[in-house]
Amino acid sequence: MTHWTSADATTEARNASYMAAVDLGSNSFHMVIARVVDGALQLLHREKQKVQLAEGLTEDLLLSEEAMLRGLAVLAQFADTLKPVPTQSVRVIATYTLRRAKNSAMFLRRAQAVFPYPIEVISGQEEARFIYQGVAHFEHYQGRRLVMDIGGGSTEFAIGEGFQPLKLASRNMGCVSYAKLHFPNGRISTKRFERAILQAEQELEPIVSAYRETGWQQAVGTSGTIKTIRDIIVGLGWHPVCIELEHLLQLKQLLIAQENSLQLDLPGLADDRKLLICSGLAILIAAFTMLGITQMYYVDAALREGVLYEMSDRLHHHDIREHTIESLIKRYSIDIAQANRVRRTALELFAQLRGSWDLTDEMADLLSWAATVYEIGLHINSSSVQRHSSYILKNANLPGFNQEQQQLIATLVRSHRRKIKTEDLSQFYLYSASTVVSLLVLLRLAVLLNQKRRDDFLPELKAQGQNQQLSLHLPKVWLEQQPLLVADLQQEQLHLKKIAFVLDCPYLVECSLQSPGFDPASAEDD
Amino acid sequence: MTHWTSADATTEARNASYMAAVDLGSNSFHMVIARVVDGALQLLHREKQKVQLAEGLTEDLLLSEEAMLRGLAVLAQFADTLKPVPTQSVRVIATYTLRRAKNSAMFLRRAQAVFPYPIEVISGQEEARFIYQGVAHFEHYQGRRLVMDIGGGSTEFAIGEGFQPLKLASRNMGCVSYAKLHFPNGRISTKRFERAILQAEQELEPIVSAYRETGWQQAVGTSGTIKTIRDIIVGLGWHPVCIELEHLLQLKQLLIAQENSLQLDLPGLADDRKLLICSGLAILIAAFTMLGITQMYYVDAALREGVLYEMSDRLHHHDIREHTIESLIKRYSIDIAQANRVRRTALELFAQLRGSWDLTDEMADLLSWAATVYEIGLHINSSSVQRHSSYILKNANLPGFNQEQQQLIATLVRSHRRKIKTEDLSQFYLYSASTVVSLLVLLRLAVLLNQKRRDDFLPELKAQGQNQQLSLHLPKVWLEQQPLLVADLQQEQLHLKKIAFVLDCPYLVECSLQSPGFDPASAEDD
Repeated sequence: MTHWTSADATTEARNASYMAAVDLGSNSFHMVIARVVDGALQLLHREKQKVQLAEGLTEDLLLSEEAMLRGLAVLAQFADTLKPVPTQSVRVIATYTLRRAKNSAMFLRRAQAVFPYPIEVISGQEEARFIYQGVAHFEHYQGRRLVMDIGGGSTEFAIGEGFQPLKLASRNMGCVSYAKLHFPNGRISTKRFERAILQAEQELEPIVSAYRETGWQQAVGTSGTIKTIRDIIVGLGWHPVCIELEHLLQLKQLLIAQENSLQLDLPGLADDRKLLICSGLAILIAAFTMLGITQMYYVDAALREGVLYEMSDRLHHHDIREHTIESLIKRYSIDIAQANRVRRTALELFAQLRGSWDLTDEMADLLSWAATVYEIGLHINSSSVQRHSSYILKNANLPGFNQEQQQLIATLVRSHRRKIKTEDLSQFYLYSASTVVSLLVLLRLAVLLNQKRRDDFLPELKAQGQNQQLSLHLPKVWLEQQPLLVADLQQEQLHLKKIAFVLDCPYLVECSLQSPGFDPASAEDD
Repeated sequence: MTHWTSADATTEARNASYMAAVDLGSNSFHMVIARVVDGALQLLHREKQKVQLAEGLTEDLLLSEEAMLRGLAVLAQFADTLKPVPTQSVRVIATYTLRRAKNSAMFLRRAQAVFPYPIEVISGQEEARFIYQGVAHFEHYQGRRLVMDIGGGSTEFAIGEGFQPLKLASRNMGCVSYAKLHFPNGRISTKRFERAILQAEQELEPIVSAYRETGWQQAVGTSGTIKTIRDIIVGLGWHPVCIELEHLLQLKQLLIAQENSLQLDLPGLADDRKLLICSGLAILIAAFTMLGITQMYYVDAALREGVLYEMSDRLHHHDIREHTIESLIKRYSIDIAQANRVRRTALELFAQLRGSWDLTDEMADLLSWAATVYEIGLHINSSSVQRHSSYILKNANLPGFNQEQQQLIATLVRSHRRKIKTEDLSQFYLYSASTVVSLLVLLRLAVLLNQKRRDDFLPELKAQGQNQQLSLHLPKVWLEQQPLLVADLQQEQLHLKKIAFVLDCPYLVECSLQSPGFDPASAEDD
């Protein structure tokens, strides 16, 4: 691995083939910078800063000011190192602590001042998926593989074959949070170990039968905790390369005999790991016994490498999110003919408005996906479908989507018809409220115009946009024959008015049966 | 049809074969009393009282005091007539207005004082299903049939073959609510008609394509509005038996020419129908044009007859709710082996406790169904499964379940593990809070004891119950080998303590690793 300096990169003049992944973990922040050479990733630089965010997470899930400041300082430092990498080639992922903290929005806002990259908070299952991808790309393996990663606040498990994960899980137990809970002040005892192991076993209980049933041929571990334990076992000469249960139990006895973590002196155990070794070991012992793991190898790749590989895949136009949407279509038997109609109309309008509304390719993708799955809730019930669709999309595991993207799609779908939930529109950190409104208006119109569910129905659409305004031109002779659509468009004008958006549609009044004062929207059901 | 008096019935000395169905509709309350003779239903008595509940529903969905008093007076009258019928053979169904009114709980409580039967509020889809069943049993038809019923507050549509409904829908438009909205003061005009028809068409828009696609060979209408319109058309000599669009439009013109509803003088139009004829006609015209109905026959059976037929089916142990649960198992790919384990354990405990807790057969059914579907939410995501299961069960269309039963199952499942949502437990009108707690405790224990998902795991269970207390006896030698289960049971004791319920379990402390002060429940995730 080469040593990375800004100078190295600037000589290559902001080469677009540089990319970086940053992982804001609960114990450490990591950064990896790589270059794509002949389609393959070449790692140039890896950096790790201990931040211990999870240590600053209170019982009521608030992130302390001290922890925030530690995080912000490291982000500022990372920003400096990242300068030579093109902005669009930096992907920043945040995991457990920022996923759980109730005040993480505040941290994310403050981060913007020192760190000019969007920070994507991801779900636990998504975290497990990235870890699996990091390992799968790093080291090829023929059979079925179990991957385990003990983090600061959560522990991820994945089983997969090749690049295909089969099981993904994240459990709320990590070396930092368990150290705080079970080994305060660094004191070590049999009782403390037993309690920590028992709680980890309870945490694992819900996934055990499914994981054992799926099975695997090889178990590998990633990240600092498992690496440290492997290093100690190898350093003590107990095993040449890997971890076995008997050595974990031996290590536990050895630690108990020492009584205090700070006094530990073991090969491979760095000072900043001393307070975390007991909690990490307890979690690992619980996993070995509950899942029946016999041997575990350490692999030097993790979440951030998974993120990098996925970025390089997206460069080659393989976007896993497409597969995710396709699998939703199958799993929920979505009426694909109707989904295609709505998607086509939405994208047709998008193309005409993207200039004046300043919309990006990413927005087109998100709109297209929302238009594809807006009726997913029909699987639960046709009445209040918008609510059911939104519920499923908010809560399903959607590989490839970060939490904001998932939330955005759920929000668009939630208000795809009837009243607009205004309180939902400005909850985003990565998307401005006006962008959300733009996408929502396009989705609503696309759904409204395709209510007849017919391919041969719509005339050519012409649309123009300004700030909080859209003019939709439909041929007058055609409109005159569609009294119901006219009424629907008038109702839509009233709905949009409530979010201060003007839908302008010539000939509507002339073609209308409705008196202008009549507001059917006020009577409608949610 | 015989004329019914209490004397008739008392001569047969409270014959268990009498049964009655009462329908608290938005326009009228209806009662049907029948007798089962050689397995077939013989209608003895039908009674109708105009209440116009929907007229008393304000824009913000509150039921007025006057409307409540009208309803309560009729209920008192019905109670008197129902005296000869055995209590368990009376089924009382409430529809649109009591479904929608925000203060319906108050009406239901006040009704208890004068009307000693449980009132079951049902969903719109369930309403449509009962109507379909009423028609299907009343008059056999070989092909596919569309059934339409215009009520006071909602209009139901069903398509089916034989006794099997294929499509069920309920739309929020009725002759009382539309009269109030579009024909206030009984004034009739072209404009008013156009607006009412247009709004009905908009209301129908979401179901049109699916209904047209499913198709039918015969269209029939039920209930007062459609009967009145049929009677007028026949009375005027326009058609010998049935309704066609041209006569509906002709009738509309005739009504417009009269200008005021109260002055109408038409054959078949009773005084109490005069203010509802225009709104009902507008809804019928919208249905004919949107769905493409050419002819509609009137059938003299409706919701209440459907309810009666279903009661007679249940007598013969055909409970449609069993089919509903079976179809959920298929639709959501429920792990039936695990569902069976949990259901068996729950019913085993139920059998030992039903005496001391005073539980009924109905409770056993509800517990059994909840235990069967508690993992339905895995279809959405395995994390927070209890929340997803509850969401699906609360929102799905569950034929045969009234809203309280559906809500009870959703509530039990919502708290099948982890923290108990205490605020949910006392929201019921038909079930006491202590009954809900009893069922919840049994479900939770059944789930907890079957966490290993193994058939050969559990020893014989012995349970005893008292008020807010359960003693669960597990063999000591067995418990000693299950440290995880011991920890889970201790955690469960803490969870139940929070709802003032004592779970007593001998040997737990002796077998435990945990110090008694430690509360893992406080740290756990929802």
